[in-house]
Formats: sequence, C-alpha cells, structure tokens
Amino acid sequence: MAGAHALCMIPGPVEFDGDVLAAMSTPATSHVAPAFLETFGRALEKLRVVFAAPSAQPFVFAGSGTLAWDATAANLLEPGDAVLVVNTGIFADWFGECLGVYGGDVTQLRSSGFGDRPALGQIEEALAAKSYKMIVITQVDTSSGVLNDVKTIAALVSRVSPDTLIVVDGVCSVGGEALQQEAWGVDVALTASQKALGVPPGLAVLMVSQRALKRALDRTAKPTAYFVSFKKWHPIMQKYEARQPSYFATPPVQLIMALDTSLTHLVAAQADGAAASRRWEEHVAASATVKDALEAFGLTLVPTHRDHAAHTLTAVYYPEGIDGPALLKAISERGVVVAGGLFPGKAGTYFRIGHMNISATRPDLHHLETTIKAVKEALTSLGYAFPSK
Amino acid sequence: MAGAHALCMIPGPVEFDGDVLAAMSTPATSHVAPAFLETFGRALEKLRVVFAAPSAQPFVFAGSGTLAWDATAANLLEPGDAVLVVNTGIFADWFGECLGVYGGDVTQLRSSGFGDRPALGQIEEALAAKSYKMIVITQVDTSSGVLNDVKTIAALVSRVSPDTLIVVDGVCSVGGEALQQEAWGVDVALTASQKALGVPPGLAVLMVSQRALKRALDRTAKPTAYFVSFKKWHPIMQKYEARQPSYFATPPVQLIMALDTSLTHLVAAQADGAAASRRWEEHVAASATVKDALEAFGLTLVPTHRDHAAHTLTAVYYPEGIDGPALLKAISERGVVVAGGLFPGKAGTYFRIGHMNISATRPDLHHLETTIKAVKEALTSLGYAFPSK
Repeated sequence: MAGAHALCMIPGPVEFDGDVLAAMSTPATSHVAPAFLETFGRALEKLRVVFAAPSAQPFVFAGSGTLAWDATAANLLEPGDAVLVVNTGIFADWFGECLGVYGGDVTQLRSSGFGDRPALGQIEEALAAKSYKMIVITQVDTSSGVLNDVKTIAALVSRVSPDTLIVVDGVCSVGGEALQQEAWGVDVALTASQKALGVPPGLAVLMVSQRALKRALDRTAKPTAYFVSFKKWHPIMQKYEARQPSYFATPPVQLIMALDTSLTHLVAAQADGAAASRRWEEHVAASATVKDALEAFGLTLVPTHRDHAAHTLTAVYYPEGIDGPALLKAISERGVVVAGGLFPGKAGTYFRIGHMNISATRPDLHHLETTIKAVKEALTSLGYAFPSK
Repeated sequence: MAGAHALCMIPGPVEFDGDVLAAMSTPATSHVAPAFLETFGRALEKLRVVFAAPSAQPFVFAGSGTLAWDATAANLLEPGDAVLVVNTGIFADWFGECLGVYGGDVTQLRSSGFGDRPALGQIEEALAAKSYKMIVITQVDTSSGVLNDVKTIAALVSRVSPDTLIVVDGVCSVGGEALQQEAWGVDVALTASQKALGVPPGLAVLMVSQRALKRALDRTAKPTAYFVSFKKWHPIMQKYEARQPSYFATPPVQLIMALDTSLTHLVAAQADGAAASRRWEEHVAASATVKDALEAFGLTLVPTHRDHAAHTLTAVYYPEGIDGPALLKAISERGVVVAGGLFPGKAGTYFRIGHMNISATRPDLHHLETTIKAVKEALTSLGYAFPSK
C-alpha cells in the first residue's frame, strides 16, 4: 500500500482518528486478560450511552452490518413471522432477503421511486392491513442516501401496533444521525464499526431492548444459527461487563480496543451523558456544506427532498454529459476517494460522498473543503459547464 | 492498556510480527480501492500456497473459527445429513452442536478418555456402520492439546467412504502443523486468523475443494444462512482475485492487510512454493522444547501419548499440591500469560501454553525460554518440589 494516503470519503470505511488506528496495532493480548476485560466491558457501557439505551443489551462480535442482519433474523424471528420492511434502497431489499432466509414472511413497503421514501400514511395502512411481528427501518440507506424518520415511524408503530418489534438498521447512521433508542421505543438498533462509529471494519454491533432480548432468550423454536446466537453471547457480554473471563468465540481484540477508543470520543460529544450528541449537529452541518456546494455546481441530489436526505453521506447524480467513471477517476487523481452508485439499474447515474466521523467533526482537517475542491476541479477537467451565478 | 507488554503465550491470540501489527493501523482505505483489491487478491493466492491446495477456493470474511463452523454447516449440509465427528476435545462437541443447528445428524466418535484420540479402527468401523455425508476432524483440539493424524484419517475415508466430505477444523493448526490439503484429499480446511496464521483475531478463513464448492453452489435446499453463504461470497472472492471491485459485505480491510503481510512470511517458509513448510518443523521443535522442559519439571502432559500431542500448544496438568489459579497468577507476575484449562469437568486440573507463529519460528526472541523460566520460577515460588535429577 505504497504512496500517499488518499482521503477516504466513501460512505464507509471512513477516516479514523489517530488514536483509534494506534489501538489497532496493540500487541497480542489475551481475550481474557484483566486489562482487556476492562476495555471490552467499558466499551459495552459506552455503547449504551451512544445509543441512548441505558437498559438495552449490547452485543459486539466479529462481523459486519450484514452479519448483524443474520443476528437479528436468527434470534428474533420464528418461521412464518411477518415482517414489514420500510424500503428506501437496496440495503432494505438485502436485509429483507436475509430475514427471509431465517423464515421471515417479508413485505417490502416501497416508495414511489428511487430517492423517495414511503410516506407515514403508507406505513400506517400497511400496519393496519396485517399483523407484523417486526418492522425494519433503514435509518440511512447507503445506496440512496435517503434518511428515514425513525422517531416518527417508531411512534406510529408503538401507537398502532405496539407488539411489533421495531428494528433499525443504523449501519450508516449510528454515531452520526440522531438516535435515542430507548426514548423512541426502538427494540434493536444495529450497526457496523466502519461508519459513524469511527472504527475500522470488522465488527457487528447490536443494541437490543429488554423486550426483544426476552423474546430471543425465551425462543423455543429450533435455533437457526450458532455464531450469532444471543443465547450464546448474552452470558459472554454480561461477563465482559462484569470484568469476568468467559469464552464462546474469540473476540477481535484489537478492533474492540479501537472501538473503546473511538467511543471515548463519541461519549465526550454527549456532554454529561446527555441523550443528544454534538456529533449529530456536526454531521448535519457537514452534510449541508457538501450538499450546498454540489447544488451550487448545478448537480442534483438523489433524495427527492433535502428534508429526507441523510446527513452521513450525499448521493448525487452525475451531471448530464459527464462520464461517471471518468469523474470518479478525476476526483481520485486529486487525492480523494468517493464511491460510485450501488442501486441496481441506477448505479451508473450517480455517485456518493461519505462525510462521517472526523471528516464531519473536525473542520481543522479540511476534509470537506478538500473533497469539494477535488470534485470541482475534476468537473472542470472534464469540461463541465458550471451554472452561471 | 498501560504498562509493559506481557508475553502472550496462550493458544491464540499469539504474538504477532511487527509488520503485521503495523498493517493493522493502516489509515482508512476503500474496500474497492485498486491497492486493496491487489492486497486481498494476493492474500487469497497465498492462502492456496499455505494450505497446499492450488485448485481450492479460499473464503475470507470477518468472523472467527466459530463462524467458519457456521459457514461449513450452512453451505455443505442439508437437513438430516449424517456427520461423523472425530472427537478429541470440547471444540469437537461445539462444532457438532453447530452442525446440528443447521440440520446435521451428528454422531460424536469419542476416544477412551480426555487426552486420548479415537483409534483408526474405531473410525473405520463407524464409517462402515453408516453412510456419512461429512466427517469432521479437529486437527488440534485447543482444549486438550491432542493432535489428530489428518493425513491417515483422510486416506482411510477416501478409501472406505469416498463420497464423504472431509472437513478439517484447523483453527489451532493451519500454519503450524503439517497440512497438505489437496494431496491428502481434504475438502474443507478452516481456520481463524489469531493462531498459527499470525494475524490478530477477527477473520474466518476457509479453503474449499472444488468438489465441496460444487456441492455448495448446486445446493437446492432452502438456504439456512445469509452472511456466510458461499453462493454470495464466491463471486466476491473471484472478483478480488481478479482485482476487480465487488460488494457483498464490507471486508475487514486492516485485518486483511495484516493477513497479507503475515502470509508473506508463511509463503517464504515454503521454499519455491513447496507443499512442505519450514514452519512445521519449527513448531515441532518448539513443542519439543516446551514439553521436554515441563516433563523434566515432573509435570504430566494431557495427551496420553507424546505422538499425538499437538505441536502448536502444550496442555499439561498442574502438579499435585499446586493450586492452579495461584500458579497462573505467579507465571503472569513474571510477565508471561498462559491459559487455564477449558474442558468441562477438567478445566481446573491443567493449563495450556501456546507456542505458535514467531514464538516458534524466531528463537532470537527467546519466547520459549522466557516462558519456561517463568513457569519454573512460579513453581518454585509456590514451594513445588522438583524431581531430583
């Protein structure tokens, strides 16, 4: 991996703090060494603060956001259970596919088109039409850059279908977008390490309400997975939090040290342990900076309304007459890596810029300006005609 | 994690090379950046050399050895398939439990007692009595320190039950114990990163024969897992090897860089890409050094015969009159971390010393001498009466 470091402005992995990277290269440490029990236990406690879910049960194991889907499905669904998926992009389709593998009877509630999101009325209608064991809401779909209003949807579900478990896919949101898991009545919020949590990829993280945990632990149906079993991991997580040694599968020690380090920054952004984080405002501001600049360049955002655009990434169409791969290459030649599109049938029409973690919270690093400048110069190099002021 | 680094001599995580640790703290890199495609593709190629399986298909994803069990079970078993497990310790029981979750009809072939292994005749009898879709052999059971003779068992299976898939749990062996996957006819060899592969924990690694791969890809039964699906990962692994971007779930970028770095050392130990590795001899020698010293101290090994004792770790009983926890503490106070027992009902009677990776291959680091000295001093401090010469 020779050469200068290219600024990584994709929607995950994101740029990491130096102390988080340093924790990654900690020498070999036993997964039951007292110092590591303290690190892991402390990280679990901090997760409760970051998710604003003081009574929920955290689970952290090697994996990714995708494996957190398996964990949600295998532990909380029994064969034939109906699930409603609020679909705002391809990650909702894939999560739905995963739920189906574990026996879920999945209904995808789709929006009117790419970049839009299902209206609250549609969700209410769907909940009235059928009894759902679970509803899945992708807070930010990384493929479309669309933000769901988790707070409002969760309130609706709690009102009209209180027994329905509320699952939030927070892979591209937790640590960046507002989330008050317990106050909002969210049962499961899941994420991965490499996005707004600010840790290299390799961890699946789930925060599970006591109601959902009870359902998983009381589950009498035949287990449908081994590694992701909450019944297996629950005593292990409890032991780590009690700083006692235990074993089910070897935890990724260095990644958990990095998680603990990054969570220190996240918790510090919640003054006095408050449920609201300064980081949420910082991500809103970073998002506005990027979106304002791209719109001023004459580009069109993928989300059909700014008020349902994610604050952790920006999905934006290539302008007419500009070749997508050529633009990505020209941006990359200016030392900044952004991501192409991901939505089937639309992937070639748009690109995505991530603005999470230190890229959003540390203006002194000038990641946003550097990125906007690279996009502008790249467009110029391809002969793009910027709109006149 | 303040204070001096304690020498980590447990059977994984093991001590890591400096360049492997340095790779862990590589700054954020896109999982589809050209340099990373090269790193991941190269690592997959090197795995074929290390497993001596040129035509097999490698799979690497975030996880642990335990998740590699799920992958084996979910991809290669259909409900009701009979599996024979050659049991040499608790990891065989747990792997069997995992296979059962995915529909396997599991028979545990047990040895006469803890520290022993099933005889070849027992295995032949079992294979004659019933038609098995799969046989599972733990090459080294980390709980007992017992080594199975994979080459001989595999030859037997190929002779008497050629359709049976041969699965080797190589978590505590690959990279340390002799393995010639293709020549021996092994269908699946699975491992984790944190043992003799010399990489921090967080990776599941599987090497799958074309025969087993075909069975997984042709499988028509309903899928029973999502994240570990070979059907999902196979095109991704192929793309990485072709240095082309692709996506199913975000790979743990830094861990894969560390894997690539460590595999460079492993491949270098196989002069001219030979199937035999200098590392195997080095682990044999390290094992002899540790076992000879402990036996000279009057201690008794857990394996009932030296010829079926693992070369990657040493499991050894506490001597009579010596308190186990007190001994582990006294060793730890001398800067060396070893592991307690793990086998249910026996855990309090023995302890385990890992001697893998640089602790076995780099005598200049004096890890073995330091460990033996710490054990000797710890025994002395507890008033142990060494045998007279």
